Amino acid sequence: MKTLIIVSHPQLAASPTQQFLKASAAGVKGATWHYLDAIKTLDVPAEQALIQAADRLIFEFPLYWYQAPASLHEWLAAVWTRGFAYAEAGGKLTGKTLGLVVSYSQPQQAYQIGGSEGVAMSTLLSPYQALAHKTGLQLLAPLEIAQFSYLTEQQRAELMTRYQQYLTLERPTRFADQAAWFLAQLDQKGTQDEHVALMATTLAARQEQLAGLRHTIAELREGEDD
Amino acid sequence: MKTLIIVSHPQLAASPTQQFLKASAAGVKGATWHYLDAIKTLDVPAEQALIQAADRLIFEFPLYWYQAPASLHEWLAAVWTRGFAYAEAGGKLTGKTLGLVVSYSQPQQAYQIGGSEGVAMSTLLSPYQALAHKTGLQLLAPLEIAQFSYLTEQQRAELMTRYQQYLTLERPTRFADQAAWFLAQLDQKGTQDEHVALMATTLAARQEQLAGLRHTIAELREGEDD
Repeated sequence: MKTLIIVSHPQLAASPTQQFLKASAAGVKGATWHYLDAIKTLDVPAEQALIQAADRLIFEFPLYWYQAPASLHEWLAAVWTRGFAYAEAGGKLTGKTLGLVVSYSQPQQAYQIGGSEGVAMSTLLSPYQALAHKTGLQLLAPLEIAQFSYLTEQQRAELMTRYQQYLTLERPTRFADQAAWFLAQLDQKGTQDEHVALMATTLAARQEQLAGLRHTIAELREGEDD
Repeated sequence: MKTLIIVSHPQLAASPTQQFLKASAAGVKGATWHYLDAIKTLDVPAEQALIQAADRLIFEFPLYWYQAPASLHEWLAAVWTRGFAYAEAGGKLTGKTLGLVVSYSQPQQAYQIGGSEGVAMSTLLSPYQALAHKTGLQLLAPLEIAQFSYLTEQQRAELMTRYQQYLTLERPTRFADQAAWFLAQLDQKGTQDEHVALMATTLAARQEQLAGLRHTIAELREGEDD
């Protein structure tokens, strides 16, 4: 899968979150880091070609006053022209997926009715749902990064995994896809480590059990339909 | 009332809507037109002083991909610092009002569930509700301008009235405030026109009737409480 990570952040070097994500994306095959604030003059056809070459687009940004920073808005206004983007006008985006990687400094539970921010993240991000609807993009549930600076090492490792899966898995929240991803990762690392080899064997066995169970359930259902 | 109209639009001269609003605001006492895209370098203390001097702030913008253009986001990120804006940090905005003047090219009914855009305007504008909540600003219901180019002369005249009221009335949607506004306008125009003088007299009489009715209702209610 080819993934274009469109990053909007006015001070990337000063952001530990973005530095972490950049390092996490660096090892991901097919992922391209595209940092908007570094672009001096927008070359619209070149930007559109980049987008067209991707299967998945990621908008990655911190929340500033509950919205993306200026560079994402500027880029969208210039590059996502009607003819290029509107599904009804024969746009070029239909069928691709769109992911949102959103970071903020409040705890995740702040963003709900009755929470300290008083509004749900899904409500704040509704413009991207409307954009996906208009362009024929399939929107993924957002990957939210709350209070990155408070994360433990273990939590950061988990975030790296979730992020890499978000960039590459067809359905990032589906268990079977996640398990397959882990198996591929373990396979890459090789089986020189006894512990890793055991995990890989166990996971593969569980996957087979799961497939077997699915098959049984499917057969039972067929019986029901008779 | 002192009103600061903060306008975000990358091509103001090419926008008939904004030119119309600018002309409508020109005659309004206490209203200042503040065009963000013309600012080369933001002078943060000067911007903050402008804001502090106002009783009402208006964010005025067209919808680009369901959000304000880049300049509003840039200005907010630079000028609305935590110490200046957060109510919990002793911010300077508490008690002022915030209005939103939003223009778009679809019909108004497109913005609702089941409408062609599939999302309500209130949902799309929720970041400003969160911003008002955070800063202690009192949010006014938005003034929406749908398909300005299709408006008749009569509809434009009505829009001008609604806009001028939105800039200056404490409660722009309250009938009594609107009627008082009309009386003041008629008063300014003088009574040299017989027709205008008749309208003014009628409106003033209706206002008195209305006040009388309110008084009667209040007395009846007191009776109920006995």
